[in-house]
Amino acid sequence: MFENARVTRRLTRTICLLLLLIAPRIVAAQSDPLPSWNDGVARQSIVSFIQTVTDRASPQFVPVEQRIATFDNDGTLWAEQPIYFQLAFALDRVRALAPKHPEWKTKQPFKAVLDGDMKAVAASGPKGMMELLLATHTGMTTDEFTKTVVDWIGAAQHPRFKRPYTEVVYQPMVELLAHLHANGFKTYIVSGGTIEFMRPWTERVYGIPPERVVGTTFVTTYKLGTDGKPMLLRQPKIDYVDDGPGKPVSIQKFIGRRPVLAFGNSDGDQQMLQWTAAGAGARLMGLVHHTDDVREWAYDRQSHVGRLDKALDEGKGRGWTIVDMKADWKKVFAFE
Amino acid sequence: MFENARVTRRLTRTICLLLLLIAPRIVAAQSDPLPSWNDGVARQSIVSFIQTVTDRASPQFVPVEQRIATFDNDGTLWAEQPIYFQLAFALDRVRALAPKHPEWKTKQPFKAVLDGDMKAVAASGPKGMMELLLATHTGMTTDEFTKTVVDWIGAAQHPRFKRPYTEVVYQPMVELLAHLHANGFKTYIVSGGTIEFMRPWTERVYGIPPERVVGTTFVTTYKLGTDGKPMLLRQPKIDYVDDGPGKPVSIQKFIGRRPVLAFGNSDGDQQMLQWTAAGAGARLMGLVHHTDDVREWAYDRQSHVGRLDKALDEGKGRGWTIVDMKADWKKVFAFE
Repeated sequence: MFENARVTRRLTRTICLLLLLIAPRIVAAQSDPLPSWNDGVARQSIVSFIQTVTDRASPQFVPVEQRIATFDNDGTLWAEQPIYFQLAFALDRVRALAPKHPEWKTKQPFKAVLDGDMKAVAASGPKGMMELLLATHTGMTTDEFTKTVVDWIGAAQHPRFKRPYTEVVYQPMVELLAHLHANGFKTYIVSGGTIEFMRPWTERVYGIPPERVVGTTFVTTYKLGTDGKPMLLRQPKIDYVDDGPGKPVSIQKFIGRRPVLAFGNSDGDQQMLQWTAAGAGARLMGLVHHTDDVREWAYDRQSHVGRLDKALDEGKGRGWTIVDMKADWKKVFAFE
Repeated sequence: MFENARVTRRLTRTICLLLLLIAPRIVAAQSDPLPSWNDGVARQSIVSFIQTVTDRASPQFVPVEQRIATFDNDGTLWAEQPIYFQLAFALDRVRALAPKHPEWKTKQPFKAVLDGDMKAVAASGPKGMMELLLATHTGMTTDEFTKTVVDWIGAAQHPRFKRPYTEVVYQPMVELLAHLHANGFKTYIVSGGTIEFMRPWTERVYGIPPERVVGTTFVTTYKLGTDGKPMLLRQPKIDYVDDGPGKPVSIQKFIGRRPVLAFGNSDGDQQMLQWTAAGAGARLMGLVHHTDDVREWAYDRQSHVGRLDKALDEGKGRGWTIVDMKADWKKVFAFE
């Protein structure tokens, strides 16, 4: 009996020790940080990159303050079809503002928007797009503009998915952002979209706070109101276009450190990925390749929106991580 | 004897309890976060502001993500006499680069710099200053420029104090930055100086990382070298002047949140302080008033460098925290 008790005690102690040893592994296995990613080359390259640069014993260890990761937004973190979501916002704003602008009834491209003639809107080209952008994004204070974004993003629905635009975000990328945050990375958005269209919702949706949102800007001026209250006025003039070669420049201006990881989905991200790749030490350059015409859209070299052509060739040639949306993503959107 | 032992035990227990109760106060008193500040209105307003906004029970509690504090640099965090330190850097660079520019021997304002004729340098006015700035700060890659700053800041000495410029920083302000960091604040530099002149040393000296340095910028362009390596080229053209009304604009662009605390020392900081003051809830607007002509310099309304005139009037009228350097600072520099 006495001997039995001793054996039992020893056994219990051994089991406890073993449990303590394997518990972290069980927990780690249970809490897979990337559950919406299928096992494949893309997932493996991401997981192994993050493991390597956060491992103090690795020669490729990256100190926490240098763990900078930059992400394009349209087509990389959320969808960009059938039109850029910011353009959908601009069109809705034209409709909302039309009563105050009777001249729009006969003036292009506004007339086309009000008539619902999307072909004519598209035909107005870059000049027409810029007119729509300036008419809806400038001529007010920063606070007033933010309010229109907050109101719109809370009410508008994506035409295909019948969901708020903030739900048409890629679940695997949201998981990747969270996994990077958990590993001490500072994530940034570096987008061709305008900064203040994104800031009101990026913290809630991506966990990326306003000060880590970089993008296109309008000239803004400071003014004291008649009541002595200061305001910032958005002027109808582009300050900076944060696209293509503009992205490494804005990364340098806003962040001042070269990213160790960057993700994009189009030729507009090629220079950001080149700049990231050219740094010393371990790097991860990622491209989201839109290959799923059932759950999302399939497009690349021929697309007008988010064309992926030269960057795809460079990425394939240089071993960048090319995410095949159809094969690599178990889930595209959380609502599926 | 027995009774005595019991009394002793009780007494010991009581003393231990008392010690436990007062220990935190002793520790707190020992680790004064602002040892270089004399007790006075300025110190009290700072301490009480930080206590109030970090106290969950206070109606003026500010959540940690909104604890944004912005600081001017020249004359606020480090000295700016006898000339702006960035101008000292530019003059030294002109001397270093002169062998490659024989034409400077006869061309103003370069000739004046090489002759050591500071009167003629000053007489060249804003146009001359800009020429010196462009000739020494642009026309190279960002990496090359950073190297010249790192080399200079490691070797150059302040003419009066015979110390590296990074030691001519205000110890009370360094303590304030550390105290803010310990209380969950994100501090930013928002300076009229150029961003990339500051970034190489602000983390080491102030604990402010590169991504939290906002300032004047030059146009920068992206280029692939003949070896396929990308580079960022600093162009001889000002991109943005981060001074006066430019400061609230750059705060909005880079940070996207209104500061709850802002510190400056000149009229170039007036709009930043107005913008900070106009937000809702508890605010602290601070001005460093240079009143100490023994330990530092005394200057305000009549000064060419760091003129403090309109902002001083507004600050006095609106109850901003005006730091009287002579009276409020026990120590100005750590090396004293």
